[in-house]
Amino acid sequence: MIEVAERTRPPSVAGKVMAILDAFADGGVRLTLSEICRRAGLPPATGHRLVGELTAGDFLERAPDGTYHVGTRLWRIGTRAGAVTGLRELALPHMEDLYEATHDNVQLAVLRDGSALYLERLRGTRSVPIVTHVGSALPLHATGVGKVLLAFAPEREREAVLAAGLPALTPRTITDPERLRRCLAEVRRDGYAVTRDEMTIGAASVAAPVRAADGTVVAALSLVARTRSADLRRLLPPLTTAARALSRDVAVHWRGDAAARRDSA
Amino acid sequence: MIEVAERTRPPSVAGKVMAILDAFADGGVRLTLSEICRRAGLPPATGHRLVGELTAGDFLERAPDGTYHVGTRLWRIGTRAGAVTGLRELALPHMEDLYEATHDNVQLAVLRDGSALYLERLRGTRSVPIVTHVGSALPLHATGVGKVLLAFAPEREREAVLAAGLPALTPRTITDPERLRRCLAEVRRDGYAVTRDEMTIGAASVAAPVRAADGTVVAALSLVARTRSADLRRLLPPLTTAARALSRDVAVHWRGDAAARRDSA
Repeated sequence: MIEVAERTRPPSVAGKVMAILDAFADGGVRLTLSEICRRAGLPPATGHRLVGELTAGDFLERAPDGTYHVGTRLWRIGTRAGAVTGLRELALPHMEDLYEATHDNVQLAVLRDGSALYLERLRGTRSVPIVTHVGSALPLHATGVGKVLLAFAPEREREAVLAAGLPALTPRTITDPERLRRCLAEVRRDGYAVTRDEMTIGAASVAAPVRAADGTVVAALSLVARTRSADLRRLLPPLTTAARALSRDVAVHWRGDAAARRDSA
Repeated sequence: MIEVAERTRPPSVAGKVMAILDAFADGGVRLTLSEICRRAGLPPATGHRLVGELTAGDFLERAPDGTYHVGTRLWRIGTRAGAVTGLRELALPHMEDLYEATHDNVQLAVLRDGSALYLERLRGTRSVPIVTHVGSALPLHATGVGKVLLAFAPEREREAVLAAGLPALTPRTITDPERLRRCLAEVRRDGYAVTRDEMTIGAASVAAPVRAADGTVVAALSLVARTRSADLRRLLPPLTTAARALSRDVAVHWRGDAAARRDSA
């Protein structure tokens, strides 16, 4: 993937369009025109013209207060993403079963650009409030799904994440690389990961790998519950059962996308 | 919204980029370069160059077989769509409750561009297989959610849909405008809609409106079950209960997006 900032030539119009849309990937849901231009690195006149075109095409929408947000048309195109939709569709029934058995938050994430990218999340009216939403990217070292994805990633990728630094999200986050390496070795040995207050104070999680036909870990499934009341040993059997059932479905139905994923990784 | 085809001037580069991405909105998940160019109405050289830029930016991804699909980056930006994400997040706990009470398909849809656009769908391992997925747009006159959205739409919008024709999806689809008008009057009177085999043979649905603070219907919630075994009278109480609970949440938390929706409609 080519980052806009790494380009030596000035960005093309297509590059500017992508930069404008990218401004919404990590930011607030609503942005003003000047925020969009600043994030995209575009002069106001160019930004104004292109944002106008994107709004006319329903890729962006303009709220009555003058701010912009991602439009329904762009959302709809995004739902066609092969690598996401295929896995999500396979996972949903298993995630439903897991939700029903536990009533905790149920999450599905993949490793993408050095983060845990959340493809789906189910939560109930009684689940502990958590920071993730669908499309969130969270640190690998501080989340249950992240530890699973990191533990089973190629060593080079794992060491690159460790070398990039392990910021403390809470006082309980594992920030020592050697301690994290030992923790990840345990995840590989045990086949699951556990976190307690490491991403959010008050939230604990258990996570398990989802494997493709060749054994490659393609995703992680997790349950997030209240640290105080969660009996993680009780959560583990339904979680690993659902992760294995999903792995069987992935092995049968998801070869093409798994290949695409490895190809693009 | 300005359709590309309606423009009198040749499309700008931003317009071409949108046309390429739009090629994936209604088509297959995977498209060849020539399919993309044909759908976007672009000469091969232009299409090749822009698809290459979009692939380098991870807006599109290229599979090992040379086909393209929507990239994870574009999916992620799409998840930030204000009008969709806000409503979906509010609806999900209520949809979970509904799934748990019934084990049938649970769907959330809004009226968009004369179709029922499905924002979310939960389904279990035992639910009846249906044609919708998240991001699908289905005919209003043949679906439960569609009948609700159409019944409570402004009369001008409703008559425009009826005037555009009512194609038969199955032999049971209501194709007579006068009969559909009577059916929609019943939906307004009863506060719910029913379909039996009208979109897919074997599938029946009940649907109820989701209202904003001012009473405007902003979405529809539905249950889809097997026609043969579904007792729709049994499904109605949990459905209308969940739709009312979601309406209360929407009334409190969703004013901004409701305003944006009306503004853009």
